[in-house]
Amino acid sequence: MDYAATTPVDPRVLKAMRPYFLKNYGNTMSLHTWGREAKEVLEESREMVTSLMNGNANRLIFTGSATESDNFALKGIAFANRKKGKHLIVSSIEHHAVLEAAHWLERQGFEITYLPVDKYGLVDLNKLEDAIRKDTILVSIIFGNNEIGVIQDIEGIGKLCREKGVYFHSDATQAFGKVPIDIKRMNIDLLTVNAHKMYGPKGVGGLYVRDGVEIEPLIHGGGHEFGLRSSTVNVAGIVGFAKAVEIQKKEMKSDAKKQIAFRDKMIKEISKIEDSRLNGHPTKRLPNNINFSFAYIEGEALIMKLDIKGIAASTGSACSSDSLEPSHVLLAIGLKHEEAHGSLRLTLGKYNKKEEVDYVLKVLPEVVDKLRKISPFKGGWK
Amino acid sequence: MDYAATTPVDPRVLKAMRPYFLKNYGNTMSLHTWGREAKEVLEESREMVTSLMNGNANRLIFTGSATESDNFALKGIAFANRKKGKHLIVSSIEHHAVLEAAHWLERQGFEITYLPVDKYGLVDLNKLEDAIRKDTILVSIIFGNNEIGVIQDIEGIGKLCREKGVYFHSDATQAFGKVPIDIKRMNIDLLTVNAHKMYGPKGVGGLYVRDGVEIEPLIHGGGHEFGLRSSTVNVAGIVGFAKAVEIQKKEMKSDAKKQIAFRDKMIKEISKIEDSRLNGHPTKRLPNNINFSFAYIEGEALIMKLDIKGIAASTGSACSSDSLEPSHVLLAIGLKHEEAHGSLRLTLGKYNKKEEVDYVLKVLPEVVDKLRKISPFKGGWK
Repeated sequence: MDYAATTPVDPRVLKAMRPYFLKNYGNTMSLHTWGREAKEVLEESREMVTSLMNGNANRLIFTGSATESDNFALKGIAFANRKKGKHLIVSSIEHHAVLEAAHWLERQGFEITYLPVDKYGLVDLNKLEDAIRKDTILVSIIFGNNEIGVIQDIEGIGKLCREKGVYFHSDATQAFGKVPIDIKRMNIDLLTVNAHKMYGPKGVGGLYVRDGVEIEPLIHGGGHEFGLRSSTVNVAGIVGFAKAVEIQKKEMKSDAKKQIAFRDKMIKEISKIEDSRLNGHPTKRLPNNINFSFAYIEGEALIMKLDIKGIAASTGSACSSDSLEPSHVLLAIGLKHEEAHGSLRLTLGKYNKKEEVDYVLKVLPEVVDKLRKISPFKGGWK
Repeated sequence: MDYAATTPVDPRVLKAMRPYFLKNYGNTMSLHTWGREAKEVLEESREMVTSLMNGNANRLIFTGSATESDNFALKGIAFANRKKGKHLIVSSIEHHAVLEAAHWLERQGFEITYLPVDKYGLVDLNKLEDAIRKDTILVSIIFGNNEIGVIQDIEGIGKLCREKGVYFHSDATQAFGKVPIDIKRMNIDLLTVNAHKMYGPKGVGGLYVRDGVEIEPLIHGGGHEFGLRSSTVNVAGIVGFAKAVEIQKKEMKSDAKKQIAFRDKMIKEISKIEDSRLNGHPTKRLPNNINFSFAYIEGEALIMKLDIKGIAASTGSACSSDSLEPSHVLLAIGLKHEEAHGSLRLTLGKYNKKEEVDYVLKVLPEVVDKLRKISPFKGGWK
């Protein structure tokens, strides 16, 4: 129940990767046969990955992670366009990768607007329009949120940014391979994607950069990836990413259908627990995301109790779940500190079975009840 | 004959990685059992990798590549220490990862000294001492050069830097796992290492940062790797790196002995080819590196002819071998443009056999001879 943290590698993906570890291990920069073969499979992989976003193959830059892609997008656009302006807009529910890159840019003299969201986590197009200034160079809005699963009106945001002549970056780490993405129809200039949330390997990401967008590298060196991201190309990893995309192209629709049915059943049942509250939007949400707050209890305690019962779950996002700070996403949608602390994220995946869903729905109310009996918290938050 | 470009993954390494793709695929940041197990194996891997450099386990930051580590070292030190000074020193035979990061820092207002080297590629300690200014914050010198294999007097450089109170970074991408490295004895403050040059997977590197060294992250986000390098930890890749280190700890000495015998035999035989010249130092060189220039011919043509004969080789470094610029390393040791163009790098590895060495020594003089017969170049360069 924690597929948003990471997924296992699909055995078909590992099978596809295997020869590139052992036999076809060439460096894409080498002139000889082994190198040229590696280069060939790199370009085939680029075509496959871009085909799932309706992109042009030669505009995807492979990176080492979605976090790297987000840093590359924000810092690369900021440094390459500072003559045009020094203002960037990000939503207040971005992943830490975007937020921390933005904080760093602030320390370098850039100005950042942290756009508020409504109680569902949705960005208001009017507020976005008001926030865009003459010196705004980039808008970065997460496609599907990693904690509460809310899916933004990406098409509306893209249209607005294009009209205003401002670059639009979207972090689609959680959305890519789960919901349809069309960078052309949606007017997305930069898109962050990665492999390990969709049954590909960890350590492989990508940043799509639309033709004409001016961007600087984050990692300089030998000039790999069109001179925009240096370092020996991780061919095996990229082949794995491409295979994961090939699989999701076929299975995304049926996966989503199955997961939405599970999700909605779980939301319906968990809502019956007293003093529980769904976080995020009831329908505009990722097919696999369920996020609840429970009054009077701590998310961490809930996770540990569920763990003992064999259930992997999360509170806040896994990326910072070893921190004790309440989730900035839950605070941004209006929850109080104590409410944000009592949150639970369950995220579904390809391999979840009906029995597992039923088991969680049986165990969770019992665990919540037990924890409340020993809870030191007084008073409610209804 | 191109092991410096990259190596195959040792089958024992892939076997060690396998469970972390399929079963033990947890996110190190997750609080549940799967996450805690991933965190555990991450820390075990950190111990293993640092044990081969006499480092402290909690000072190694895993990255996505040596290029990222070099960028992290240079930019991270520069940004964190700019109040102390804005001057950095790098050798003129650094890898592009260091040189391009340095060029970028120049554009941000830092000052860089590109230290010349002698005809062997060696840094002169007196010249280095003269170059160190009051506002110097970092010296970056490559441990063993990727093109000509020259190994620097790292201990002397480290001692000097420590005395002068300047941080010392060394890119040991080609040296780690091939020659002994002791960061304490050598007074190394920052060390770049990676996996794919030593039979580990591509896409995994590390930067050792001595306790007390002030450095900024290059990639911001969820706060992984002691808050210094964010993004979901590539557990399978890191396990592979650790396994590769475990193997090299046992096999490094015998590998080096075998490769030095092959290397010296090849150097002796290739030297017999008329108008050939060894690049780099005869003894202060990596066990696996052979680099020659041949008058009147183009390195690219040589590579292609050897490729047809089933021999993988390189001219310049693989990292930029699709560029037509002559190697900056060969120019730095005093070669003319046309000499630098006629260079050949042969690099040995674990799996090379005596018959392969003999085959290359039979084929190479024939190929050089054939190319010279059709060469348009007039006059020599002796």
